[in-house]
Amino acid sequence: MKSTVSGTADGTLSYEQAGVNYDLIDPLKVTAQRAAASTATLLGRHGFAEVAASRGESAYVVDVGPFYIASIVECLGSKALVADEMAALTGRSWYEGIAQDTIAMAVNDLITVGATPLVVQAYWAAGGSDWFADAARAQALVAGWKRACEICGVAWGGGETPALAGIVEGGRIDLAASCTGLINPKQRLSVGDRLAPGDTIVLLDSSGIHANGLSLARKLVERLPQGWLTEVAPGMSYGEALLAPTVLYSPVTEALWQAGIVPRYCANITGHGWRKLLRHPGRFTYRIHTLPPVPPVLAFIQREARQDDREAYSTLNMGAGFALFVAAEDAARCVEIAQAQGIGARIAGGVEDGPKRLLIEPLGITFGDEDLQLR
Amino acid sequence: MKSTVSGTADGTLSYEQAGVNYDLIDPLKVTAQRAAASTATLLGRHGFAEVAASRGESAYVVDVGPFYIASIVECLGSKALVADEMAALTGRSWYEGIAQDTIAMAVNDLITVGATPLVVQAYWAAGGSDWFADAARAQALVAGWKRACEICGVAWGGGETPALAGIVEGGRIDLAASCTGLINPKQRLSVGDRLAPGDTIVLLDSSGIHANGLSLARKLVERLPQGWLTEVAPGMSYGEALLAPTVLYSPVTEALWQAGIVPRYCANITGHGWRKLLRHPGRFTYRIHTLPPVPPVLAFIQREARQDDREAYSTLNMGAGFALFVAAEDAARCVEIAQAQGIGARIAGGVEDGPKRLLIEPLGITFGDEDLQLR
Repeated sequence: MKSTVSGTADGTLSYEQAGVNYDLIDPLKVTAQRAAASTATLLGRHGFAEVAASRGESAYVVDVGPFYIASIVECLGSKALVADEMAALTGRSWYEGIAQDTIAMAVNDLITVGATPLVVQAYWAAGGSDWFADAARAQALVAGWKRACEICGVAWGGGETPALAGIVEGGRIDLAASCTGLINPKQRLSVGDRLAPGDTIVLLDSSGIHANGLSLARKLVERLPQGWLTEVAPGMSYGEALLAPTVLYSPVTEALWQAGIVPRYCANITGHGWRKLLRHPGRFTYRIHTLPPVPPVLAFIQREARQDDREAYSTLNMGAGFALFVAAEDAARCVEIAQAQGIGARIAGGVEDGPKRLLIEPLGITFGDEDLQLR
Repeated sequence: MKSTVSGTADGTLSYEQAGVNYDLIDPLKVTAQRAAASTATLLGRHGFAEVAASRGESAYVVDVGPFYIASIVECLGSKALVADEMAALTGRSWYEGIAQDTIAMAVNDLITVGATPLVVQAYWAAGGSDWFADAARAQALVAGWKRACEICGVAWGGGETPALAGIVEGGRIDLAASCTGLINPKQRLSVGDRLAPGDTIVLLDSSGIHANGLSLARKLVERLPQGWLTEVAPGMSYGEALLAPTVLYSPVTEALWQAGIVPRYCANITGHGWRKLLRHPGRFTYRIHTLPPVPPVLAFIQREARQDDREAYSTLNMGAGFALFVAAEDAARCVEIAQAQGIGARIAGGVEDGPKRLLIEPLGITFGDEDLQLR
């Protein structure tokens, strides 16, 4: 493990330095992706076929005739460790929000392809049976899970609650969610084939760090004299600000469909920060002219980790949790529809002909194709 | 954690003594099940409805009109720890089989409701990026995952490979699989409503311990002078025998459908051993007259753990990995069809009117309703 690695000589703390070494994971990912792709033809046995364009997208899509089925499994990551630290400091449980974060990881990915999430399954793997003995914490997890399902209109189908001593660390829990949804009617499919120059980029506000960048955030706390209780805004501690639950965006995508709007592409802005705006496999230039406000906790992290804008926007969501790429004539209505759902939104830029790159003009930052290798 | 608890004064080793305390997990399960059930009505927003009888079954089923969708997430459990021990002793990777075990956990549950598994998602949460640095092990995991998908005719849609230092223990991996399938045509639904006295119980052979009872098996090794390398059969070590991959039963259920046979109920025999034959919510007596052969590793565990038959059959699969409850006139063909797929099978007993209980006549064992509380 690399969790003891600290920052560079100038004090900058980057994501790789915070303990995740993608060089070790990525060769496996490539092999796994190839093996996975080779299994697609097996669907032919059942008379079905994959939507090949969904390979490499945030959810996998199968054509079953009358509609498409999308499915996914997603992990919370290390945000629960912050909840545990804050529980020790404050005496209250933070797992209601953690539950929402976990569901958001799955749902916000599933909706990128145009799916309506229908069923969520819970994967709660504890380090031992005694994790469940803290009734207040366990009930908070249940309550938050249920509430997130209600917000998204998904049925909680069931799940697994294994006790995995020897695999999951004692006192910890590994949280994940699987989600299955339908793309129905089939015109709702959005895997990027209709994205074109002239389209508009609408960014939906985040609530904070969401559930990506937590390794960095946890590393940073070691530098803070008051640790998790350091104020990032008046009356708001660093720990509490980090634990703001991830926004659930499916009410927006469902409302868009009700209004007759089908996004041409969607990107859930998670790991790799704004580089995720380069996710579409095509060759386009994305020009950003307007930035969302940066949540105080993210501004604080950027400042304390001594990151320049390029590093910050390449790692954190910096206020943008989800990107909708829509026809220009739909953009203003998109913003209104999101706001009607209580989620801040703005027209942030557009899609142009040109080399594959992202220009964040207000900050003078450019990311190129070489900055995001997900496939 | 209770992992240091040993057996009783007479040397018997039971499952609870092996480290899993269900008393702590079950209150949470009950609360979670109630909360989950309350979300079912949310499907109405999308014009769909759950199949209520699937609540409490091994997979969750939603009626989406032209067919039903089934979904699930399942955990491998602690079998990977045995693979790690055996890798250290033998210098080879055992993760190809472990991959099959993980997929079997999901697929064998999904098929109980009559579903054809279509898509599997991989959840591979490592204790740190360095887990993936062992290329041979990682490639074995990929190869085994792909092969299991091929056996089951499922597409590997994608998945998650997080590095979760601080949650998953260093050098370990938490493996799970989600699976989505279709019940198509809808007549294939098997949630037990047609089970009736006079039906026949066909048991499909297991290959060994599968992936349940591993906590007990790992505890037991502490008593063995030669540990994992103790012979359980000529030339077959305890560790190797434990690592026999779980049988994938979906080729059988698919072949049954091709032959026009729809089981009236199915039970995947996992945790709780043969008590799973009592899973159906109705009031029936299940009378077993013929037992499958007990795999050597399970006979060895029973003997070394000094379990009587009742304890062994209430914990381990004892040679029966999957139960088909079928119309009496279909039973002989079921056996032939399973055997044609290379899976041993036999007519083991029948369903009768009477109090809810399981009579294993050759052993003189009775389990009652109070012995299995899953709902």
